[in-house]
Amino acid sequence: MKPYEKFISREDVLQIHEATLRIFKESGIAFENDKIIEICKKNGLKTEGYKVFFDEETVEKARQTFPKKFELRLTADENVILGEHAMLRLPIGHPAFYCDENGVIKKMNSDLAIRQFKMNEACNATNSSLVNQAIMFDTNPTEEQMIFGAAAFRYKYSNKYHISAGEYCSGLQPEEAYHRSLQGLELLKRFKGIESGIYAQSGINSLSPLTFDEMPLYRLLAAVENGIPMAVIPCAMPLLTAPASLAGLLAQTNAETLAGMILTQLINPGNPVIYCNVSGGTDMRTLQLCIGSPETALIGYATAAMADFYDVPFRMGGVMGDAKQVDAQAGAESFMMLYATYDCKPDIALHHVGCMGAMNVYSCEKFILDEEVANYVERMLRGIDINEKKLAVEEIVKAGPRGSHIKGRTPKDYREDFYLAQLFNKDDPNNWQNSGGKTIVEVAHEEVERRLKAYTPPVLSKEQEEIIMSYLPEKLKYGI
Amino acid sequence: MKPYEKFISREDVLQIHEATLRIFKESGIAFENDKIIEICKKNGLKTEGYKVFFDEETVEKARQTFPKKFELRLTADENVILGEHAMLRLPIGHPAFYCDENGVIKKMNSDLAIRQFKMNEACNATNSSLVNQAIMFDTNPTEEQMIFGAAAFRYKYSNKYHISAGEYCSGLQPEEAYHRSLQGLELLKRFKGIESGIYAQSGINSLSPLTFDEMPLYRLLAAVENGIPMAVIPCAMPLLTAPASLAGLLAQTNAETLAGMILTQLINPGNPVIYCNVSGGTDMRTLQLCIGSPETALIGYATAAMADFYDVPFRMGGVMGDAKQVDAQAGAESFMMLYATYDCKPDIALHHVGCMGAMNVYSCEKFILDEEVANYVERMLRGIDINEKKLAVEEIVKAGPRGSHIKGRTPKDYREDFYLAQLFNKDDPNNWQNSGGKTIVEVAHEEVERRLKAYTPPVLSKEQEEIIMSYLPEKLKYGI
Repeated sequence: MKPYEKFISREDVLQIHEATLRIFKESGIAFENDKIIEICKKNGLKTEGYKVFFDEETVEKARQTFPKKFELRLTADENVILGEHAMLRLPIGHPAFYCDENGVIKKMNSDLAIRQFKMNEACNATNSSLVNQAIMFDTNPTEEQMIFGAAAFRYKYSNKYHISAGEYCSGLQPEEAYHRSLQGLELLKRFKGIESGIYAQSGINSLSPLTFDEMPLYRLLAAVENGIPMAVIPCAMPLLTAPASLAGLLAQTNAETLAGMILTQLINPGNPVIYCNVSGGTDMRTLQLCIGSPETALIGYATAAMADFYDVPFRMGGVMGDAKQVDAQAGAESFMMLYATYDCKPDIALHHVGCMGAMNVYSCEKFILDEEVANYVERMLRGIDINEKKLAVEEIVKAGPRGSHIKGRTPKDYREDFYLAQLFNKDDPNNWQNSGGKTIVEVAHEEVERRLKAYTPPVLSKEQEEIIMSYLPEKLKYGI
Repeated sequence: MKPYEKFISREDVLQIHEATLRIFKESGIAFENDKIIEICKKNGLKTEGYKVFFDEETVEKARQTFPKKFELRLTADENVILGEHAMLRLPIGHPAFYCDENGVIKKMNSDLAIRQFKMNEACNATNSSLVNQAIMFDTNPTEEQMIFGAAAFRYKYSNKYHISAGEYCSGLQPEEAYHRSLQGLELLKRFKGIESGIYAQSGINSLSPLTFDEMPLYRLLAAVENGIPMAVIPCAMPLLTAPASLAGLLAQTNAETLAGMILTQLINPGNPVIYCNVSGGTDMRTLQLCIGSPETALIGYATAAMADFYDVPFRMGGVMGDAKQVDAQAGAESFMMLYATYDCKPDIALHHVGCMGAMNVYSCEKFILDEEVANYVERMLRGIDINEKKLAVEEIVKAGPRGSHIKGRTPKDYREDFYLAQLFNKDDPNNWQNSGGKTIVEVAHEEVERRLKAYTPPVLSKEQEEIIMSYLPEKLKYGI
């Protein structure tokens, strides 16, 4: 039994797929891009303006060519298979706000984005690089730097895997994004020094309901023409951009994801795809997206289920949270989402740690505490190890009734079986309060400062430096 | 597949049982009570001093007579079946400390215990009554009042089910506890006005490793002679009172629970039993019991598994937590333990909400926020409801690409599928901060004060008042 079957059955999955086929037939999907419409027409599909109607034959043909798995070259020497629960983990990406150690929420800026970036470098819970685009604020960049500066920053300063090109296309003419995407991919390829094979993955958002707007489709085109694996990512909100029911939201967003995936096969049959869905709930009092909600966890399980049905790699999670402070809500939502994520083991977990305020707020202290929560979750999901030796009957008999089990040194069995909290408070309440009563946010903050101080940049080759340096504005060129 | 099988297999369970049989044979269990030893001898068991050695035949014979389920009379008119996941839920019981709304930890006293008590009255997440024994502090009670005052207090002031007698025997001569237990049961029976059937359940702790001390055994004797269902509750700490491994801890504590359960059958064959285990981890830096740990969740699943193997009702959970403040740790640990609890659906969940500081600290605000976490968990475990109507294909087609799903009124589907947070913050970060930035603890505190004000005592009959009034000290006699 797969973990998702606890929440959604295989029969349910089939019903969602069948609803999707009806949506393809009766509503169509809007691809607001002339080149894409041309491709669809060439493939003999029925169109009406920007609307494309996928027939069942096209759907089935595309499903035949989705790769079940593919090898991603993390570096020139290291590979990983996506489609086998690779668990590439990236931290939260581009929050517009920063919550400081006193709980004050401020606008993100370049210096705060550097703190955010450095936090990821010392983190065991993530393994891939990401930097907030806010790194470019206050740096007076040229146009080239604005577009590729954040990527170049990662390549220069991160010790983690670079799995995406991350060109910044906001404000460009839609068609320009096509060329900039090609340029961004080329930059990453050269930096990694990889001649062949898959060296990156990419993703675009759908525009719910049932639409893809012009620029993302140009980015998709550039990527897929070059065999880059593509994630198609809906972020629908029930009662606004999706129906009122969770099932309806899943039917619609599956139509969006599947449509994008089919499109990749029309452009480049056999191009790898990554199933994804980051939809959540809607709080109708505030009209806010709710991603720290039980329904988001369920959408995560549904994502794993649909990916299994289409037999493709998938992306979900990790920490999605709506809390505004590093508080009990933050902890509960982190546990919920990390549990769902580690339970399903996606190939990619974006927003893995540090997310607050529905992806809009970053906190270094939350980031640290999420690591602890991730450790709890991983320990729990390892389950109970029962074997002759661990059952320890001889030891139990030897100690006997009222006997002692105290050992001189902490035994291996204990270290294996019992997780030792790193930051969470396991002290006696009185002792703790009488010795100063440091809060866990204060403890986390000390760890934050330690890590920021300990940051060390990677050593790049002269060739690598040459490839990227022109994209870095002065302020970010000579160390952080 | 049962939920526990994700963490512990049926084969594992059998291994634990077999380890237990070896412990019975090679170590024996100490019952430090002459009456109990007499009973064991009468049943032909091998003994050495207080040590009793259960042979396999005795174990198997007892297993034949454990009731799979039994009916508990909640009131004169209302019954529930234990053994069918009854989910009787009680709040945290007797913390020695109280964490106020500012995070200051103080010694529990009578007034604070009244606040604790009233919180449970308005709580949807619990359905049974409990009061902190600290209610009796500063009340200058007589001996009778000291022993039965807390029970009488519940009967007088709680609107919830009374499922335990709860006499307070600390400081008494062990044998005296036998008579006081009988008296306590009689008091509850008379108060509930029940002539026949099972009107209460009871429990005693084992003294790990492998021991039962004198007084609890007298309490067990009194209960079981009267057919009262009995929970036997180990609370072992690895590396102190149990082996270093989780498997070893389970083998030993299963021996304790099973020994107690077998004993009930020797005294009164067919007496209902309730499988239980509230062991946790040990933090070796502070020598504290860790119950807000992933291993405690796993011990919960193992409890469900062993109860299923012996085919008896069980008690586990609910919120076990080690946090010292209402913080991210509190939230994460609450989610973890409530998830495990609702996943396994025990017959009784004690400590269901409000627990902090390894059962030593109570917080009204934590209590309230745990309710919210319980709501998240329940929603998540309901899974995804997929059916023709909810898939909403017609609605999706009607709205079409870039269409709107906004409705005049919030539809039933939305209310059914998406949980509306009561206390957790779903606001926009800027809006929230600019409009005062109330923390969730502050929001919870307002709800606490509302509930305390709204408390209304039940209306008792004249007979009921007469039964209990003499047990209440003056301070608690005339309203709270």
